[in-house]
Amino acid sequence: MTANWEIKAKAKREAIFNSIPEKWRLAKVPTAEEQKDVTGTYVHQFLDKGEIEITETDAVGIAEKVASGEWTAVAVTEAFCHRASLAHQLLNCLHETFFDAALASAKKLDEYYAKNKKTIGPLHGVPISLKDQFHIENVDTTMGYVGWIDTFQGDANDPRKRKYESEMVRELRALGAVLYCKTSVPHTLMSGETVNNIIGYTWNPKNRFVTCGGSSGGEGALIGFRGSPGGFGTDIGGSIRIPSAFNGLYGLRPTSGRLPYEGMANSMDGQNTLLSVVGPLATSARTLKLLTKSLLSQTPWLYDPLVVDMPWRDAQEQAIRDVVSSAASSSGPLSFGYFKSDGVVNPQPPVARAVDMVVEALKTAGHKIIEWKPPPHTELIAIAMKPWLADGGKDVYDSFALSGEPMSTQIQMSYGGGPREQLKASEIAAVNVEKRAIQKKYMDYWNSTAEITGTGRPVDGVISPVAPYPAARQLKYLYYGYTVWVNALDYTSVVIPVTQGDAAKDVYPKDYSPLNDQDKQVFDSYDAQLYQDSHVAVQIVGRRYTEEKMIAIAEYVGGLLGK
Amino acid sequence: MTANWEIKAKAKREAIFNSIPEKWRLAKVPTAEEQKDVTGTYVHQFLDKGEIEITETDAVGIAEKVASGEWTAVAVTEAFCHRASLAHQLLNCLHETFFDAALASAKKLDEYYAKNKKTIGPLHGVPISLKDQFHIENVDTTMGYVGWIDTFQGDANDPRKRKYESEMVRELRALGAVLYCKTSVPHTLMSGETVNNIIGYTWNPKNRFVTCGGSSGGEGALIGFRGSPGGFGTDIGGSIRIPSAFNGLYGLRPTSGRLPYEGMANSMDGQNTLLSVVGPLATSARTLKLLTKSLLSQTPWLYDPLVVDMPWRDAQEQAIRDVVSSAASSSGPLSFGYFKSDGVVNPQPPVARAVDMVVEALKTAGHKIIEWKPPPHTELIAIAMKPWLADGGKDVYDSFALSGEPMSTQIQMSYGGGPREQLKASEIAAVNVEKRAIQKKYMDYWNSTAEITGTGRPVDGVISPVAPYPAARQLKYLYYGYTVWVNALDYTSVVIPVTQGDAAKDVYPKDYSPLNDQDKQVFDSYDAQLYQDSHVAVQIVGRRYTEEKMIAIAEYVGGLLGK
Repeated sequence: MTANWEIKAKAKREAIFNSIPEKWRLAKVPTAEEQKDVTGTYVHQFLDKGEIEITETDAVGIAEKVASGEWTAVAVTEAFCHRASLAHQLLNCLHETFFDAALASAKKLDEYYAKNKKTIGPLHGVPISLKDQFHIENVDTTMGYVGWIDTFQGDANDPRKRKYESEMVRELRALGAVLYCKTSVPHTLMSGETVNNIIGYTWNPKNRFVTCGGSSGGEGALIGFRGSPGGFGTDIGGSIRIPSAFNGLYGLRPTSGRLPYEGMANSMDGQNTLLSVVGPLATSARTLKLLTKSLLSQTPWLYDPLVVDMPWRDAQEQAIRDVVSSAASSSGPLSFGYFKSDGVVNPQPPVARAVDMVVEALKTAGHKIIEWKPPPHTELIAIAMKPWLADGGKDVYDSFALSGEPMSTQIQMSYGGGPREQLKASEIAAVNVEKRAIQKKYMDYWNSTAEITGTGRPVDGVISPVAPYPAARQLKYLYYGYTVWVNALDYTSVVIPVTQGDAAKDVYPKDYSPLNDQDKQVFDSYDAQLYQDSHVAVQIVGRRYTEEKMIAIAEYVGGLLGK
Repeated sequence: MTANWEIKAKAKREAIFNSIPEKWRLAKVPTAEEQKDVTGTYVHQFLDKGEIEITETDAVGIAEKVASGEWTAVAVTEAFCHRASLAHQLLNCLHETFFDAALASAKKLDEYYAKNKKTIGPLHGVPISLKDQFHIENVDTTMGYVGWIDTFQGDANDPRKRKYESEMVRELRALGAVLYCKTSVPHTLMSGETVNNIIGYTWNPKNRFVTCGGSSGGEGALIGFRGSPGGFGTDIGGSIRIPSAFNGLYGLRPTSGRLPYEGMANSMDGQNTLLSVVGPLATSARTLKLLTKSLLSQTPWLYDPLVVDMPWRDAQEQAIRDVVSSAASSSGPLSFGYFKSDGVVNPQPPVARAVDMVVEALKTAGHKIIEWKPPPHTELIAIAMKPWLADGGKDVYDSFALSGEPMSTQIQMSYGGGPREQLKASEIAAVNVEKRAIQKKYMDYWNSTAEITGTGRPVDGVISPVAPYPAARQLKYLYYGYTVWVNALDYTSVVIPVTQGDAAKDVYPKDYSPLNDQDKQVFDSYDAQLYQDSHVAVQIVGRRYTEEKMIAIAEYVGGLLGK
């Protein structure tokens, strides 16, 4: 007998599929064995030349072409709806499509432009994809929970159901963005893989044997496939950065309070020790700037009680540009810390090579590089994970119980075994005090590097792996230490695509001896052939509220690397 | 038999008294009946002309005189040590004195000035008093707890005992401030009166029958007495604003994350739903600016993990100056909301009159005034008080248990009856979600006033009472609604002294009918004669992170009122 949740999940899965226009359906979906990489020339066979040109232009380029009248918003929207439809069939990356509404809003934008000879805002006609935590009129938000289908966050009778829109949605529309789809997440959001009982597993477009990452995994897969020029995800333990890295994208994890989370669905909402943040993923660094600066132009601090009154600060961006331009070399070079291993788990060879490449590129360009020897990241990781289980899993179990659906194996890794005892107020307060002390110790270390960088300033950023893997294999995402340390500190981080896997170069030393059991698992899961041509990335981490600076650094470093 | 805690408390009380040099001791301390008001001419009899001039100059004036070489830091410090000594004898407002250390640091400042012909910073030679939550080398921090005497926050063996300094202390020293005393607080910090088992009760210098306010009550009393030109308190429910209002001072409750709380003692430390904030109290509005701007010049965001990267923003201050100067009237007038009653408790007649005076002064100056009809403040008050009891009183009871001392009647009002059940993680999360929703509703209301102010902008601030009383009578501080609503919203608020009690004017209507039992208590506790000549203040409340703007408004409104 089929359980009730399975019937509901299947109906929703089919509804998503059926929302794809018949003209864009694939006759046959190849297996991963038949077609490992579905990007580039593979997908080109299904697109016309105009669609390829549009969808392989970044959001800044799209905005320019639409603003100049060369492209219409409708043409752009249609091209991305088409490519997103292909992405979903090949990768399982969408939770919702609303192409008709998107085309209608694109049409209005074109009419506005025709009448007024100007755009309505800096994102006029730019399609933007959204992780399935954003509420959008006439559309479900399931966050991958079967029990959330046809409800508002689990409540079928909430009047906000399919009416309410999240604050950032309102701002994106005001800026001229075209919204057309919502992307897949792991149920609970608490995994670096993307899997749920509605759409199943989301695969990596560049390498369909491995994960697209998570929890903003659908964003990563869709943008990596060029089914979207940019979108928004969230990050409480790496969920923007992991899919950015695994799909060859730029990504920004801002500091909490910079961009508006107001009115979005979330897990463990109200957990206040370590906040999830919302930020962009995109195909270019300059798109991170366009999206971030555009949103800040909407003064989100007047509409979201947790956003800080901090407009885009041109001076912080310009300071980096001045340093790296030979014209103004008087301000001296930049300086960076770097580490290839946190001492718990060593990254696999392609990731270690990517760190080396960035270090070399920066050294060659005349910047100062120091070895990063901070207070133990194990402390950061331990403290960051406490709030995830502060409620003993109550929120997670309650959400699964709505439908009776089972928890995926990936989520069982953290939440399996049934609900646990909750932390009490005094215990949570103790965690907050300990976390603050660790943050203070770390910032003191950061300050201390002014003594050794040679620039007279502390380091401008820290080069770090994003994960031990170029992209984890299914059920083998076992170590989050390389992202979580940043969440514990609430630092700003940018992900920068660096290179691609190269089986000839990317081998462990012959005599490699794993550091411990965790490191052995990572070592054992490595397969140089599997990662041939896979995306490999690093993150560069800045202090709190350094979004302008870190985006400028991402653009600069990307340029050094030829990206 | 005398309990052990009594012996310890008495010894500490005597040690504080004995730290006052014999030359500055009073032969006789008059009773309140004998001398209600000990400010002004009364205290002048104990000071020489130079001391009076120095201590009745505001911090900006002192900084100028020292910077010009007219006064020495030593002379300034000695004058304030003297006047503070008188204050303590008359009011019970000090927990610690360290005059020798203060004079030594003043001497060093004078030597630096003599040698370098310049100051070491903008607070060079300015004495600054600190609430007894700041840690200072060689000095206890008791926060009024007997069990904290000769410990570090209750731990006698903590190596930080009398060694460690709070981050803001480090910054104040770097700016040139002279630290010389720490001021009294109610044990637990959770009262608008100041009482503890070490120093007893701190009285209001202007009216020794009533409270100086709390919890930064010693600051209020000392600065009101002109035993300090300015100092720092903290505010989680009104604890900066209440003592400012009750003592005729300017006070700033900044938004959380603006000024550094790092390394200070606190109650319920780690409670994260509603943060206590640190901010200045002073005898002039321009001193609020001097202190705030000076601290921000120290880039506290590099040293405190909870401080936001936001330097002093001249443009925000200048925008107000431009509007109020006739030279730039093109930007139109300012606009304010105002309310005299929150509908729960009506303020006593002097407070209502003060609101009217501010409204009239602003109207006369051409500004727009609207009635403030926000979402119910009862919701704000209910949500703000939840975190204070989230741990069921555990922190409070644990702290009293260290010595076995009893809880004062004032604190029993909130925490009496023994520890209660703690909130669990999921319950705290629900409070946080509810709080955010209320904040959002309130900010939407604020935005909506753009439609009715006539300036095209929402109101620039909201004029509100600070308390129902000019200053509460002992054991009669029963309603905190007029301060707590601001904490719930994390808004920036400035307190502005307005007028003094006038028994002829300040009477309830003959037919006054109390709204409810709470209002009846306030009504019954009123005595027009008692409040003759008492200070009466209002607060003007701005949105989050509007410190520059609100200080500029305080200075402007103070000027309109002739203060």
